[in-house]
Amino acid sequence: MPHSPPQVIRSIAELRQVITAARRAGQRIGVVPTMGALHPGHLSLVAAAERECDLVVVTIFVNPTQFGPHEDFQKYPRTLDRDLALMSAHRVDVVFTPAVEDMYPPGAATMIEVAGAAEPWEGACRPGHFRGVATIVLKLFNLTQPDVAYFGRKDLQQTLVVRQMVRDLDVPVEVRVCPTIREADGLAMSSRNAYLSADDRRAALVLSRALFHGAELVRGGEHDARRVLAAMHKLIAGEPRVKLEYLAIVDPVTMAEVGQIDSLAYAIVAARVGTTRLIDNEPLGG
Amino acid sequence: MPHSPPQVIRSIAELRQVITAARRAGQRIGVVPTMGALHPGHLSLVAAAERECDLVVVTIFVNPTQFGPHEDFQKYPRTLDRDLALMSAHRVDVVFTPAVEDMYPPGAATMIEVAGAAEPWEGACRPGHFRGVATIVLKLFNLTQPDVAYFGRKDLQQTLVVRQMVRDLDVPVEVRVCPTIREADGLAMSSRNAYLSADDRRAALVLSRALFHGAELVRGGEHDARRVLAAMHKLIAGEPRVKLEYLAIVDPVTMAEVGQIDSLAYAIVAARVGTTRLIDNEPLGG
Repeated sequence: MPHSPPQVIRSIAELRQVITAARRAGQRIGVVPTMGALHPGHLSLVAAAERECDLVVVTIFVNPTQFGPHEDFQKYPRTLDRDLALMSAHRVDVVFTPAVEDMYPPGAATMIEVAGAAEPWEGACRPGHFRGVATIVLKLFNLTQPDVAYFGRKDLQQTLVVRQMVRDLDVPVEVRVCPTIREADGLAMSSRNAYLSADDRRAALVLSRALFHGAELVRGGEHDARRVLAAMHKLIAGEPRVKLEYLAIVDPVTMAEVGQIDSLAYAIVAARVGTTRLIDNEPLGG
Repeated sequence: MPHSPPQVIRSIAELRQVITAARRAGQRIGVVPTMGALHPGHLSLVAAAERECDLVVVTIFVNPTQFGPHEDFQKYPRTLDRDLALMSAHRVDVVFTPAVEDMYPPGAATMIEVAGAAEPWEGACRPGHFRGVATIVLKLFNLTQPDVAYFGRKDLQQTLVVRQMVRDLDVPVEVRVCPTIREADGLAMSSRNAYLSADDRRAALVLSRALFHGAELVRGGEHDARRVLAAMHKLIAGEPRVKLEYLAIVDPVTMAEVGQIDSLAYAIVAARVGTTRLIDNEPLGG
């Protein structure tokens, strides 16, 4: 059941016209902010927007300000034609894919600083990352004026940072977080999985296996975070291709480490597999 | 010609309902953000909003985050009843006057950082001031969703910071800057003028006199900023109650000092008169 293809918009002025018309018509606007290189995780967000909104906007923008100087901004996959083909299974009304120089014209000088949940883990490993994320997400919200915005739980800390910003700045948008989508063997879907060699791909499985093992232990009655972490560490240590950056069990709102798993917590992990940096998480207890 | 009194709203939830209804009805929303203690400068902004908008919202909020630790947050005048009486000459539909704890609930952790035009002058004299201004203005924009927002040119650098933020973050609002309103003797209207003793009030006149003298020199053909500044300095130095913080001639967009007054520039001044800090500015040339 093919849908009519989306309107692909590069110009901010053109987007504003479409959004203004939709708002005047009282349409419910849903936005799915992406960096492209779409996979079934993104498409699950698009499907949710399709179910709940009158105007579905997918943004595709590889945002330079959220990459560190030695990160993969240049090599990040840009696959617009393939992305459009993948979206054709869904009703997507607008794909907004602006140029970097239109989003950050010369003289741009405003950044959003989110403290608290943005500071540990990804915030510590990737200085400035969440400043870039918060800034581009707010810009995209202001451009698309959505009623609902869809994010994947795979980027757990990002969803908390976006929620914090929306709350603190009174942004009139509902943030919807959708479950992580995984490959059949457990690997969390990520555009960066495309970087993995066959050996790295196999080695990377230890991350989701460790998370599942942790969840299993908690289901089995183990509530001591240290013991759960020790078991997960042991599994990951058995895979020499995987260089752990962090592994922790955290509060689902503050991202602070918890000692006892008495209510919902998340096991979070970041690691390098070969040259590829991967992150993943799973809920424990709760 | 008394208008019906505005709806005074303290609750964010109640404001959202009024704004959502206005937007659904296709009304043009104008917002005048103030800290209360209204004077004819504020009322000129209200009058502009009244002419141009269907729904006129005046916000009254003494914003703690834009005051430094040793500044006048506590003693800043709070005169809501008088403000409402002054507004009765105009059609004001909504007065939004939230509590501090509703605007900054526990855990609030997001701030807007504007570089560039926010850095010199007021930014240097009042560290963190424009961070607080940008953050509260963006919050008020998100709460009131205005088509047009009105600011006074009296706070020149603030208007540049707000414009920069609006541009950088793609905020869908038109920023309208209205002329400074002065007392008959030249003193720029300011809520802080209420702090001035009679002697300070008289001494403070040297600031506007210096600005007018500078403008007069430029009209007379003097384009060398140093010579214009020297003449202004000489006038101000003759008033011992006035302690100058800065006096400069700046570009109207970047706030950078100019050497030659070849096109529109602003003379800007900040000074302490007694214990009261005053700022003022006037256009030169252009």
